[in-house]
Amino acid sequence: MLSTVNAVLMNQQEIEAIQQELGKTSLMGRSLDALIEDTDNYLALPIDVPGHSPAGGYAHNKHQQNYKYIEQAGRLFLITGDEKYAQFAAVLLTQYADKYLVLGFQEQRNTNPPGRLFHQMLNEHVWLLYSSLGYSCIKHWLTEKQRQHIVEQLFEPMLEVATVKYNFDFDRIHNHGVWAVAATAACGAAIGQEKYIDLALHGLAGDDIQGGFLAQLSNLFAPSGYYIEGPYYHRYAIRPLCLLAELTQRFRPELDIFNFKGQVIGKTIQSLLSTAYPNGVFPSLNDASKSMDIKDEGVVIAVSLYAKHYPEDTNLYGIAKIQEQIWISGCGVALSQAYQAQTSVEVPCLPSVELNEGPEGDKGAQGFVRMQNSQGDISQLVMNYGQHGMGHGHFDTLGMTYFNNDQEVLRDYGFGRWVNIEPKFGGRYLDENKSYARQTIAHNLVTVDGACQNDFDVELADSKHGTPHFFIGEGKMQAMSAFAEDFYPGVEQQRSLVLVEHEQLTQPLLIDLFRLSSQTAHQYDYSLQYQGQIIRTNVEHKQHAILNPMGDDAGYQHLWNVSEGKGQDTNLISWLQGSSYYTWLSASAADDTLFFTRTGANDPDFNLRSETSFILRRNAKNSLFANVIETHGYFNEAVEASLDARGKIHTINIIGFNEQATVIEVLGEGIALTVMINNAKDATATSKTTIEFNNQSYSWTGFLVVESKRV
Amino acid sequence: MLSTVNAVLMNQQEIEAIQQELGKTSLMGRSLDALIEDTDNYLALPIDVPGHSPAGGYAHNKHQQNYKYIEQAGRLFLITGDEKYAQFAAVLLTQYADKYLVLGFQEQRNTNPPGRLFHQMLNEHVWLLYSSLGYSCIKHWLTEKQRQHIVEQLFEPMLEVATVKYNFDFDRIHNHGVWAVAATAACGAAIGQEKYIDLALHGLAGDDIQGGFLAQLSNLFAPSGYYIEGPYYHRYAIRPLCLLAELTQRFRPELDIFNFKGQVIGKTIQSLLSTAYPNGVFPSLNDASKSMDIKDEGVVIAVSLYAKHYPEDTNLYGIAKIQEQIWISGCGVALSQAYQAQTSVEVPCLPSVELNEGPEGDKGAQGFVRMQNSQGDISQLVMNYGQHGMGHGHFDTLGMTYFNNDQEVLRDYGFGRWVNIEPKFGGRYLDENKSYARQTIAHNLVTVDGACQNDFDVELADSKHGTPHFFIGEGKMQAMSAFAEDFYPGVEQQRSLVLVEHEQLTQPLLIDLFRLSSQTAHQYDYSLQYQGQIIRTNVEHKQHAILNPMGDDAGYQHLWNVSEGKGQDTNLISWLQGSSYYTWLSASAADDTLFFTRTGANDPDFNLRSETSFILRRNAKNSLFANVIETHGYFNEAVEASLDARGKIHTINIIGFNEQATVIEVLGEGIALTVMINNAKDATATSKTTIEFNNQSYSWTGFLVVESKRV
Repeated sequence: MLSTVNAVLMNQQEIEAIQQELGKTSLMGRSLDALIEDTDNYLALPIDVPGHSPAGGYAHNKHQQNYKYIEQAGRLFLITGDEKYAQFAAVLLTQYADKYLVLGFQEQRNTNPPGRLFHQMLNEHVWLLYSSLGYSCIKHWLTEKQRQHIVEQLFEPMLEVATVKYNFDFDRIHNHGVWAVAATAACGAAIGQEKYIDLALHGLAGDDIQGGFLAQLSNLFAPSGYYIEGPYYHRYAIRPLCLLAELTQRFRPELDIFNFKGQVIGKTIQSLLSTAYPNGVFPSLNDASKSMDIKDEGVVIAVSLYAKHYPEDTNLYGIAKIQEQIWISGCGVALSQAYQAQTSVEVPCLPSVELNEGPEGDKGAQGFVRMQNSQGDISQLVMNYGQHGMGHGHFDTLGMTYFNNDQEVLRDYGFGRWVNIEPKFGGRYLDENKSYARQTIAHNLVTVDGACQNDFDVELADSKHGTPHFFIGEGKMQAMSAFAEDFYPGVEQQRSLVLVEHEQLTQPLLIDLFRLSSQTAHQYDYSLQYQGQIIRTNVEHKQHAILNPMGDDAGYQHLWNVSEGKGQDTNLISWLQGSSYYTWLSASAADDTLFFTRTGANDPDFNLRSETSFILRRNAKNSLFANVIETHGYFNEAVEASLDARGKIHTINIIGFNEQATVIEVLGEGIALTVMINNAKDATATSKTTIEFNNQSYSWTGFLVVESKRV
Repeated sequence: MLSTVNAVLMNQQEIEAIQQELGKTSLMGRSLDALIEDTDNYLALPIDVPGHSPAGGYAHNKHQQNYKYIEQAGRLFLITGDEKYAQFAAVLLTQYADKYLVLGFQEQRNTNPPGRLFHQMLNEHVWLLYSSLGYSCIKHWLTEKQRQHIVEQLFEPMLEVATVKYNFDFDRIHNHGVWAVAATAACGAAIGQEKYIDLALHGLAGDDIQGGFLAQLSNLFAPSGYYIEGPYYHRYAIRPLCLLAELTQRFRPELDIFNFKGQVIGKTIQSLLSTAYPNGVFPSLNDASKSMDIKDEGVVIAVSLYAKHYPEDTNLYGIAKIQEQIWISGCGVALSQAYQAQTSVEVPCLPSVELNEGPEGDKGAQGFVRMQNSQGDISQLVMNYGQHGMGHGHFDTLGMTYFNNDQEVLRDYGFGRWVNIEPKFGGRYLDENKSYARQTIAHNLVTVDGACQNDFDVELADSKHGTPHFFIGEGKMQAMSAFAEDFYPGVEQQRSLVLVEHEQLTQPLLIDLFRLSSQTAHQYDYSLQYQGQIIRTNVEHKQHAILNPMGDDAGYQHLWNVSEGKGQDTNLISWLQGSSYYTWLSASAADDTLFFTRTGANDPDFNLRSETSFILRRNAKNSLFANVIETHGYFNEAVEASLDARGKIHTINIIGFNEQATVIEVLGEGIALTVMINNAKDATATSKTTIEFNNQSYSWTGFLVVESKRV
């Protein structure tokens, strides 16, 4: 019977190659073990095809589980030959066919039109994609009558809803659109109606312009492969993208999809991977959870697909090691075999990279700088100087996050949402996503005049982007610098971030120079979001006896003003996070005010997590926030060990700054650095700068020099 | 040369048995690998014998590391024969001998007299114990001149300080005293001056009463083996206790130390182990960190010692599995061999146990109830109804903590201390330990009239103890109940905790009945310390626009009043901690007030962790807080899965309560429980109770019945 098999994404040769790995300790063998255990656990439960529920409710969850296991059971039937899997998928598909047309459409709850199974079509497309793939694995095992029932009562009506009833929403150039076309193509292929494949690839209009997969591939990604909504949405879009690409290669090989548009599929996979922190978690760029990582199914599929269809990249093996699984498919076989052929596989330190944004790559960029220390720990610095990121966008251009010692150190809040938790507004975005999480103050940058960048106006923000100044992505001193012009009326901003190794320090030193200039005075709030316990500060702050919010709007209304004090020449705050100490030092003065804050004000439903920040406030026209973050020491409470709880840096001096250049000094035990940056917008890597500050002359070549004196 | 070896705690036969395991994957083999790697890393650093520093400072840490590696290097010299280890220990010991008498005594900082190396003699004793053991491993390799230098300039002067200069503090019956006698005995044995062994065993007075190891063994532990200061201090005392016991067996076998006083050594080891949570972390009973666990060196030594000298207990293998290491010694060889002989080793569900307190076992008890669900998860309930715990004591009689799903759910704060973090008051106890951590309100119980139990008077508290009522430690319904009389003037308290399985629930249900009675009205604050995010509540609470502290003293001054509302018939609060949901339900009324709090008020130095509680406040003479905690559902943000975020229980009804009995109802989806408790102080397991509440009669036999109706 199996000899007739040709499932949409698995042919006889691939099935046999996968069968070879059953019971082995290869990546494929272990992934198969996990798939079988997971699927068998679900098969042991009673079958249920329920009706409607809100997102996160029982029926919603059950429909999601059902499509997942229809597809898994289909694959396992082909791989193991065990008819229990076919039986299970057949019963479920039949029950859905019995019920689908009987179920009315749900009530519309957001801009996404409602489905019969789910409150929004997005979920319905995912259901259709997976169920179609599962069906294609067992259809040869079904009776003609069963097939007819499922096709006529379930799949054809679903295709009709997708491509006719909601045709206006079908093949849009948007991440949801990729799910729609992938589902339609997969279903068409599964039931032998290939016209749906062509609709999916070329769009309803058939012009490869207004919609369809090829138009999406042409327009959704920047030349760097970056996706405008950030990695959290990118990893969600890449799943149907990869599944449909694989389908396209099988059904329309003449399109040579993996070489389409300069290998855009391979590029966008690499781009997504290159954003991840060393532990595999994605930085919460744009509007994202704090825990989404490269173990997500879409990324697992993408890595296997890349390994099959593109030239070898040995970093992929390290990524697969973090993922601990592969896509059980012909692509996965290729990755598993290549992985086994390696003598050893290490978690990779991916190269530093600047990912440009916009269809032409000229709408700013996202910067990722990585540096590995002698113990193998990887520091990663992320700066956003690209686009706003559409409706989801956070107003945080020039914002940054920082990761080392296996943890995010300078965080942003991520989205304001308890995803899929039904009692929390159905798991949807909460009001606090707008009132706090997307506001400038929830990020690590400067908020001007207590307001949000671009006044929280999405259209205005969409019309702007950061301007890259320089990016140095190799060596023991790496850095990036960018401008943001007029994100606040009449205020120019430049941020330069430097990671530099020093023999006195076990981790690279982070230097953060945030420069603002304006014709008029403004309130500048430089804020950092930290986690952990404050260990010491040299600021004589006074804790408030009663707590008031920091302000009335722009996110300030959610921050308790816990404590405040006047600035020192060099402000110092040390804190303990996990087993590491961190010290922030910043050139300051008594005119400045330092605030310690905690989220939670004006949060009557406890929707916000309780998180901490400090804010250095200054009133000025032109100003430079000159900061360093030192990572030092070690703490382990369980064994009561503490080493080096005080850092080595003690002083930051601003020598001078203007439109041409910035010069500062960083001093500590055995440490004396002079940092010199060329701020001129027309600077190049070979520009020579000579500038005088305080009657002393400074000269250097290129964008940036960090001079280290023996002390 | 090795044939002449007879180190204090290792003979030739043991050395050879250990050598057999080098390079193997046995527990001993892996422990050896770890010991060698750790020691070699330290040997690679420059040798330094510094002077003085505060606790947690550089010199303090360095002296601690030096003794540790002198001892480890000594053992590794005997095991591997590699002279680099002997050389390293010899150089260090020689430098200490050069320096010891030159160093003045440190400034006294607490009640513990100061040493020359450390700020307190306690640390100096630890140093002497370890260095002596290390010396005994290499002394045959040293020249006579080296030996003489070390003995005369270092060890003899240290013995003089311990036994003469500070003789008043030497052999006290106290956990510090065990370190002193163990150090003295080990040093005496190492340098061949056995009179010190006898001083250590029998006390300076030689009477086995006023002091010395035998007197300590006779008086430090209750008949159950429980140590009054709780597991955190117990695990610290058990290290020298076990080392000295092993020494005694070798040098004074006629004392038959392992059978001394009804095998008190074995009993106290078992007692310590039986307090630990399923993940190996010790509940923070008394005054303790939140992270101390059975991987502590003292517990590792104790488990190996028990395996060698006492009858087989198969639970020890599961404990060794959590520890992931053994004591590299003759005892460890015994454990490693027995472990290897097992076909499989699982993390154990230790039996429920009530550990009595006081020299005669009649000063109350500590109760530990454990129940394992069908998925293997262990719930553990801990209730303190014993003694105050001396100077360290927390004022929390009838307090409880609760653990399941691999996390502490209802916590107490633990101690107020950042142990060994030098900038945090030298790592010592902070003021907030007294002003918050030890106060009644920092725990999970009822605070009366906003005051501390026994008015924070240690002497008064030491004169009292809880009164056990019943303990049911087996089966699908387990429970414990106890009284606290006059811990608040004129107020009698009884708490009954029940863990009961129910077919509708994946985890046991916790029922908490806290009954108070008084002739006069009081303010009763029932508080629970939770961690995580509030998901929902049925209490119409109003978040405060500005935050005030909950009060002026007794710990309330450190609690922000975040939100408050009037009670419902059944109050409900659900929260998410890690991947589990928890719901608290409590019979209540509109006269009650519910507060949501957060620590951090009046904490100018950020010494407190930011933690949350809720407090149910009621004014009454006689009152019953009838509560349940339901554990339900599952959340995983990374894969965006949420199941069963709402629990099943919805109603708690109090049927009636008085001095004779308590009857309540717990209702939910498919759940209807009637809980009936005999409160009479003379009740027994066979007592028959018949009582009428609201014209309905309830009858049962024994202390407690939980009746489940089909619904």
